[in-house]
Amino acid sequence: MPDDPLPPEDVLVRLLTRGLAQSARTITGPGDDCAVIQLPGGKSRQLLKADAVVENVHFTRAMPAAAVGNKALCRAVSDIAAMGGAPCEALITLVLPPDISLTWVKGVYAGLNKAARRWGVGIAGGETSSAAAGSPVVISVCLTGELPSDADAGSGSGSGLNSAAVRRSGARPGEVIAVTGRLGNSFASGWHLNFTPRLREAQWLMLHFPPTAMMDLSDGLAKDLPRLAAASRCGWDLEVTALPLRKGADTAAALGDGEDYELLMTFRPEVWQDLAAAWKKQFPRVPLTQIGRITARRVKRPALAGGWDHFQA
Amino acid sequence: MPDDPLPPEDVLVRLLTRGLAQSARTITGPGDDCAVIQLPGGKSRQLLKADAVVENVHFTRAMPAAAVGNKALCRAVSDIAAMGGAPCEALITLVLPPDISLTWVKGVYAGLNKAARRWGVGIAGGETSSAAAGSPVVISVCLTGELPSDADAGSGSGSGLNSAAVRRSGARPGEVIAVTGRLGNSFASGWHLNFTPRLREAQWLMLHFPPTAMMDLSDGLAKDLPRLAAASRCGWDLEVTALPLRKGADTAAALGDGEDYELLMTFRPEVWQDLAAAWKKQFPRVPLTQIGRITARRVKRPALAGGWDHFQA
Repeated sequence: MPDDPLPPEDVLVRLLTRGLAQSARTITGPGDDCAVIQLPGGKSRQLLKADAVVENVHFTRAMPAAAVGNKALCRAVSDIAAMGGAPCEALITLVLPPDISLTWVKGVYAGLNKAARRWGVGIAGGETSSAAAGSPVVISVCLTGELPSDADAGSGSGSGLNSAAVRRSGARPGEVIAVTGRLGNSFASGWHLNFTPRLREAQWLMLHFPPTAMMDLSDGLAKDLPRLAAASRCGWDLEVTALPLRKGADTAAALGDGEDYELLMTFRPEVWQDLAAAWKKQFPRVPLTQIGRITARRVKRPALAGGWDHFQA
Repeated sequence: MPDDPLPPEDVLVRLLTRGLAQSARTITGPGDDCAVIQLPGGKSRQLLKADAVVENVHFTRAMPAAAVGNKALCRAVSDIAAMGGAPCEALITLVLPPDISLTWVKGVYAGLNKAARRWGVGIAGGETSSAAAGSPVVISVCLTGELPSDADAGSGSGSGLNSAAVRRSGARPGEVIAVTGRLGNSFASGWHLNFTPRLREAQWLMLHFPPTAMMDLSDGLAKDLPRLAAASRCGWDLEVTALPLRKGADTAAALGDGEDYELLMTFRPEVWQDLAAAWKKQFPRVPLTQIGRITARRVKRPALAGGWDHFQA
């Protein structure tokens, strides 16, 4: 190990994004699920997301190749959904060691293609690179997204330039914290490979009940809720007993397993009851669960530890 | 090795891009230096490029980290330039094994930032992922680009929707084949780390002498000229003795070393003399060399072998 090993992921990202070369076109830079870019001409904004899955971290070669391709694309779709956008074009970069089989690579592409068709994504290009024998396969996805125009957005979205992108920073004390689906046990259940990114749900919410803040749960609620709260300069009061558990998961798993790919959102309390009732009709098979309240910054109840950190054992 | 190892890179890309999920917004998909996407609203087109550098393939850890970061970004800038565009926003994905030092990673970012400022790129976001001990570092760059509007483009660009992006497919028999700079010996000379992407040159050409076809030379002329000719359904008559050689390079190196990051272009023969004279005044330190002529498809003189292939020993 080097004298100066990598710090925890959030610290590393803070260090690396300090003094970053940025453009005036960048409305939202690093620190949210996607970047938000002002397109030429003035009116449109674009979402940009890059995400990689790495062999033996996010998948193994024993898993079905098509499911691995599905996962690689759907992770990025989930991030676009979590900003309130719709996915557009993807570029795929494959890093391949010499011991990989053509059949496996074609299987990954079959999964990528099927997921792309399902979620309205065009695969516009990509690259392949070799790596030395023994290297892990890396599948890197770059995905663009579009935001609903102001005309399409719900009444809660205001009229500011950035109104249509839902960021992590919009939560306010007193608001309801809610999650879609169920949490925990993503790996053993196979959910991490064949999950449904909550694109339809997010788009329906954007039209009818725009969240004040939103992100996708990839590293576990114990890591991701503090991130949302920090971005919003708030705290939280979490009802741990209210967490919707996936089969085989307990509370610790729901907080810490990660790779849930569910939406973590906040809503103004006055809309919550109407939203909950309308949701049940619209998405009868996907639970939407209130799991707590946003509070003032000093409240962090319970204190959360755990969750997935890439650079900590 | 598996029973079905990977075929040569061009064959693999052909296999993987067959039946690809594509969107109506994609004007130019896989097979050129960048994808060309129609943006919402109708008028603007966007370039998209994804590119990765892999440790022990494109760089080693013994090389200065900032130079590695510079290379990672400039490779993508070179591809945007080779379509006639200007780079806009980048997303950076780092795959990092546990034995990497924070100092090295910060050095890579210092190089990325410096290159981004020099070439007008905003770093809008990115991701970090871990990899198992012993894995190579991977730096994946996704870069967007914009194309000059028709109002800015030179008289040769026509008025079609796709007029402003210069593709590999526009060369016609009788046209001049030209390259910028010098070829070969990129590795030993350090050019592969500290090269100058030919962005200013390409932008000047777009305004004054738009090439009929253009690409950047990354795998060596012996690999890349046949790609341009195939995309244009043409052949070539190459004057091998005319190749501009980098110090320390012979003809074989100029054809096969790769990582030249120079522009390979074709021009209508009637503009060549004016262009060559104007170029000399505009870029006195960067040679522009005629190296042959585009021919009918059946002519391939000399037959070219060699060049860099990721999946062939």
